[in-house]
Amino acid sequence: MIGVFDHPCLAGLFADDDACRIWSAERQLQHMLSFEAAYSRALGTAGVVETDVAASAALLIEKFKPDLQQLRDGTARDGLPVPALVAQLKKAGGSLAPAIHAGATSQDVLDTALALTLRETTDLLVARLKTLATDLDSLNDAFGANPLMGRTRMQAAMPIRVSDRLTTWRAPLDAHCDRLMELRPHTEKLQLGGAAGDRKELEPFGDRVARALAAELDLAVSDFTWHAARDGIAAYASVLSLITGTLGKMGQDICLMAQQGLDEIRINGGGGSSAMPHKANPILAELLVTLARFNATQLSGIHQAQVHEQERSGSAWALEWMILPQMAVAAARSLGAGSSLCRNVTSMGGASN
Amino acid sequence: MIGVFDHPCLAGLFADDDACRIWSAERQLQHMLSFEAAYSRALGTAGVVETDVAASAALLIEKFKPDLQQLRDGTARDGLPVPALVAQLKKAGGSLAPAIHAGATSQDVLDTALALTLRETTDLLVARLKTLATDLDSLNDAFGANPLMGRTRMQAAMPIRVSDRLTTWRAPLDAHCDRLMELRPHTEKLQLGGAAGDRKELEPFGDRVARALAAELDLAVSDFTWHAARDGIAAYASVLSLITGTLGKMGQDICLMAQQGLDEIRINGGGGSSAMPHKANPILAELLVTLARFNATQLSGIHQAQVHEQERSGSAWALEWMILPQMAVAAARSLGAGSSLCRNVTSMGGASN
Amino acid sequence: MIGVFDHPCLAGLFADDDACRIWSAERQLQHMLSFEAAYSRALGTAGVVETDVAASAALLIEKFKPDLQQLRDGTARDGLPVPALVAQLKKAGGSLAPAIHAGATSQDVLDTALALTLRETTDLLVARLKTLATDLDSLNDAFGANPLMGRTRMQAAMPIRVSDRLTTWRAPLDAHCDRLMELRPHTEKLQLGGAAGDRKELEPFGDRVARALAAELDLAVSDFTWHAARDGIAAYASVLSLITGTLGKMGQDICLMAQQGLDEIRINGGGGSSAMPHKANPILAELLVTLARFNATQLSGIHQAQVHEQERSGSAWALEWMILPQMAVAAARSLGAGSSLCRNVTSMGGASN
Amino acid sequence: MIGVFDHPCLAGLFADDDACRIWSAERQLQHMLSFEAAYSRALGTAGVVETDVAASAALLIEKFKPDLQQLRDGTARDGLPVPALVAQLKKAGGSLAPAIHAGATSQDVLDTALALTLRETTDLLVARLKTLATDLDSLNDAFGANPLMGRTRMQAAMPIRVSDRLTTWRAPLDAHCDRLMELRPHTEKLQLGGAAGDRKELEPFGDRVARALAAELDLAVSDFTWHAARDGIAAYASVLSLITGTLGKMGQDICLMAQQGLDEIRINGGGGSSAMPHKANPILAELLVTLARFNATQLSGIHQAQVHEQERSGSAWALEWMILPQMAVAAARSLGAGSSLCRNVTSMGGASN
Repeated sequence: MIGVFDHPCLAGLFADDDACRIWSAERQLQHMLSFEAAYSRALGTAGVVETDVAASAALLIEKFKPDLQQLRDGTARDGLPVPALVAQLKKAGGSLAPAIHAGATSQDVLDTALALTLRETTDLLVARLKTLATDLDSLNDAFGANPLMGRTRMQAAMPIRVSDRLTTWRAPLDAHCDRLMELRPHTEKLQLGGAAGDRKELEPFGDRVARALAAELDLAVSDFTWHAARDGIAAYASVLSLITGTLGKMGQDICLMAQQGLDEIRINGGGGSSAMPHKANPILAELLVTLARFNATQLSGIHQAQVHEQERSGSAWALEWMILPQMAVAAARSLGAGSSLCRNVTSMGGASN
Repeated sequence: MIGVFDHPCLAGLFADDDACRIWSAERQLQHMLSFEAAYSRALGTAGVVETDVAASAALLIEKFKPDLQQLRDGTARDGLPVPALVAQLKKAGGSLAPAIHAGATSQDVLDTALALTLRETTDLLVARLKTLATDLDSLNDAFGANPLMGRTRMQAAMPIRVSDRLTTWRAPLDAHCDRLMELRPHTEKLQLGGAAGDRKELEPFGDRVARALAAELDLAVSDFTWHAARDGIAAYASVLSLITGTLGKMGQDICLMAQQGLDEIRINGGGGSSAMPHKANPILAELLVTLARFNATQLSGIHQAQVHEQERSGSAWALEWMILPQMAVAAARSLGAGSSLCRNVTSMGGASN
Repeated sequence: MIGVFDHPCLAGLFADDDACRIWSAERQLQHMLSFEAAYSRALGTAGVVETDVAASAALLIEKFKPDLQQLRDGTARDGLPVPALVAQLKKAGGSLAPAIHAGATSQDVLDTALALTLRETTDLLVARLKTLATDLDSLNDAFGANPLMGRTRMQAAMPIRVSDRLTTWRAPLDAHCDRLMELRPHTEKLQLGGAAGDRKELEPFGDRVARALAAELDLAVSDFTWHAARDGIAAYASVLSLITGTLGKMGQDICLMAQQGLDEIRINGGGGSSAMPHKANPILAELLVTLARFNATQLSGIHQAQVHEQERSGSAWALEWMILPQMAVAAARSLGAGSSLCRNVTSMGGASN
Repeated sequence: MIGVFDHPCLAGLFADDDACRIWSAERQLQHMLSFEAAYSRALGTAGVVETDVAASAALLIEKFKPDLQQLRDGTARDGLPVPALVAQLKKAGGSLAPAIHAGATSQDVLDTALALTLRETTDLLVARLKTLATDLDSLNDAFGANPLMGRTRMQAAMPIRVSDRLTTWRAPLDAHCDRLMELRPHTEKLQLGGAAGDRKELEPFGDRVARALAAELDLAVSDFTWHAARDGIAAYASVLSLITGTLGKMGQDICLMAQQGLDEIRINGGGGSSAMPHKANPILAELLVTLARFNATQLSGIHQAQVHEQERSGSAWALEWMILPQMAVAAARSLGAGSSLCRNVTSMGGASN
């Protein structure tokens, strides 16, 4: 339990149930099996194997329960779980084995499973962004007209309205939705390249299999494999950090507004202290700052991973695995915490300013 | 001469003449004066001051030669050069002073000047991306059909064609162009908020001045100020790092191809060694890797700067100044070096593989 | 299972059993209870409470089994698990409650528990560094005299010996041990400040309690609290990244040496491919590069967390929690993988060069 | 003028005269020539060439004025200025050429010059740390006894004394001095490896030349070359970021104390605004935060550069050149600004709290 998102205690603060489900090992494995089942069917559709063999293989794969310990041992040996999973599937498939994974490679499985995960992540984030926009609109309805001291360089500048501050928090949310939607075709796309990325093992059926497989999984299909071109992933991670950055600014502002002496916001349900029962700490506002700085840090690693040598870089690719899931959960948690925070606000600005 | 882009010797490797001109202090000052001149005119158009006074002020500003030492001293005192510049302008303007900068604030000047700089940067990068795409197409015409050993996890995998490798280098370039074009409205937009971002000092002429000013400068105008919402800047920086990332992958591949024992590429004009005259070092390919890792590092800082408290954060904003210009020059240099490198390739792949 | 170290499959590659045990939630909780028990005893020793009451409280705490779900809920509410834990302890303690946690604060518990964790981490890392040094010495004994092509800028330069390459891998290991030992007094030190860091609630017994508590836990005691001075933590994280950096260089070298065409190293037990059974991928060497780039990325976040405002920053502190455990496990895993790799080397350098 | 440290206006805020002089191109060139002159003398001392030839060569080198444009062109071609510089020297030296640079390589020159720069940097930083400690002691003498509201999680916690806050700012300064002193032998050491790092071209005089050269330059000498073991550099950069981190915490605290409504500090000479003449912005305090976040960002890049492949990585090494000088100047500026800030404080804490 090294990571805060998986930690029995700390997850109470950091984890996001919906996002953790999307990025769970169970769901990832489901996506990997979805790939393999759809791949078998696509081999049938494309005429590589007979359709009834393909269908039988697909059914078997869909119902398959992998041995997790073997997958873990396989990952220790091979650097990733796919060879062990495929071995399990082929063994279970017996005579169906030629309709299983033949012509595909590990990266096809993992990257396509990732594409399915990113689709669900985008669905979640877009919904959350819209919810937060509504929550901020409600705050604006309630408190927007109240006076607030505008502050620049952490010094009182000129009086503004609460709505001016809220506008800065809210305005980027629509842009983030747009960015996520623009990214869909760059990330929700099939990976199918085979051993060296050129689909050679599938020829002359490569394009046909790719199209059938993409249709099965409802993913975009591109004429080249993105095994080693990771700009889509890095662009996606950038948006995750843009989201947490916007929320981090909001969180920092709320922490500052909640200071005694400024008293520009009141929030229900602040966190307690083991030493000072009188305190109501702005836990969620602080969390937004933490998550923003976390994702801003992580983003660098994902961009480093763009230096992905040759047809597949084990080292650059594994760096994505270490970082991307955490960034996604952080972004979802940030939006969830942002909405919770808004709903607990009982006053903003006002006469005392 | 602390930075490599400004260094009398090292700039030979790192600097890019076109990008350095766009980001030079001289050009930045021109943009700041363009803002002030256009702002005076907009005050006239909007009816805040008389049009002939506005026109006279604008003419004076356009011809003004600032005292740089005073700007430097002013920056030491005020944290930015605008108050000192405005004081110089107002003093020179005499009775025209009320038509100069009245109702604007320093950030309006610097951020709008930045928008003008980013427009020129985008022009340059898009042109360079297209040039590089053409250069890679030429390599493909010349060598694309040659065999090449496909390599995964730094191990020989399966034979591919040179064109397969080239596709991975080239495919993201069009996406980068699209990304830069999509960013234009988010970055090439007027900043005009006044002291606390709400244009209050200009009321009831705020919107009119903003529209007139945006028209003068050919920038987009939004109904809210982005003083403290830096997602546009962070999104731009992300694309700069996507560009250098793509080139870094290409550079790393070329370094690997150029190894003795693999000999998959030949390049004219490799760099010399002070100890080994026989060597031809792949200097530009290495540079691409360096610039990719540099921008991936810097990107983190720009995303940290999204935590931009209240109506203006002196600390977060100054962090952008320290980092963004270097990222932009690195991206331009990367594309320039990438094209030079392509043009010096005399063979790729081939029988020896 | 968002993090690779906790993932049912991927942990096979990334996790390190010893380090994961040290950083497990169970062990952290034990350290927190060790603090609380020692603190009760120290209250007795210092004369704040009667010694037999103190002893009874300490015994109760040492045997206490916390309700984890309550700790999780408490963390969601308070931002950290200590208030909920203390509430459980005080409730269980009944009339002993005044001898429990009185005068201490949450950060005292968590930071001191961290100091205990870092002591165990240092023990592990120092042992691993020595083991790896021995492993590299064995490689040197076996293959050091073999010729190897020296390569600079990824080009063949001049022939060297295998021992020259090995020296560069090995030399920093002793320095890393020294660094870890020098850090002990900066990190293995008691945190005890109370609510606002000045031990006021304990006066006039503050120093006496601190000395007694430090003696119980065998930690250093300093006359000021480091609640908000995080340089010791940041310095520790720096050494974690120095370690993975040294190993990353070794891993990168091994990946390059293992290339077909260079064939400068042979390693048993390379990883398999789901598409290419003939391959023997240098999984562990790649992993070393991944872990180096991971820690170099993370280090930035820990250093950002030094901007720790006032007497306690919830946001900066939580950023440490998100990052530091992963860096420590990555460093331990890197050393373990490095030793495994060395022991699987069957040849280095040789006639073919 | 891409970097803020070299910018005609912005340098007023960011640059540090002493540090900029130490890291200037002129000073770097002097150190390079110092290396070459001392190297010629060492060749004489070690018996590689005749001592009077060595002495003549050294004298010529010491007086030599390099052609900067040629060095720039050479850097563009070779990736670094040394081959061009050596060519100039050898040409000027005529028959003395065999006593110039023979057996050394470019990296020997640049890394040893860097060692000389780091020595001067450490001298400066240690002096600045001591000055700042004295400045903080003065603040403590003046205001330490004043009451101040202790604040945790940005909420009022318990009253403390100004001296409690000051202790957290001051305590790490001595540790930073110690760290810098401990690093001296790791960074102020000769680099001499020749073409591939094994001094082969100098054999059997290698060690003798190294010792003589180290003595000339008053540097440590190690029995192995650190061409490719960059932990000393990365450790140094870590301390630079520890320093700016400590100051960033102090700057953040001061920004918060200076808020209207808290009014816990008064500072003379705050920066002006172009829109609000009444403001006194805490420019230097904000700058401390900026520099802390800047160095925390940069540190990641220096640690990435530890993955320095084989006997010399052009790409990893150049990444150090891009980043390290800026980090050093940022650290020096941070300390200088910190002292200025302290001296402008006219009150801290007090009755209003």
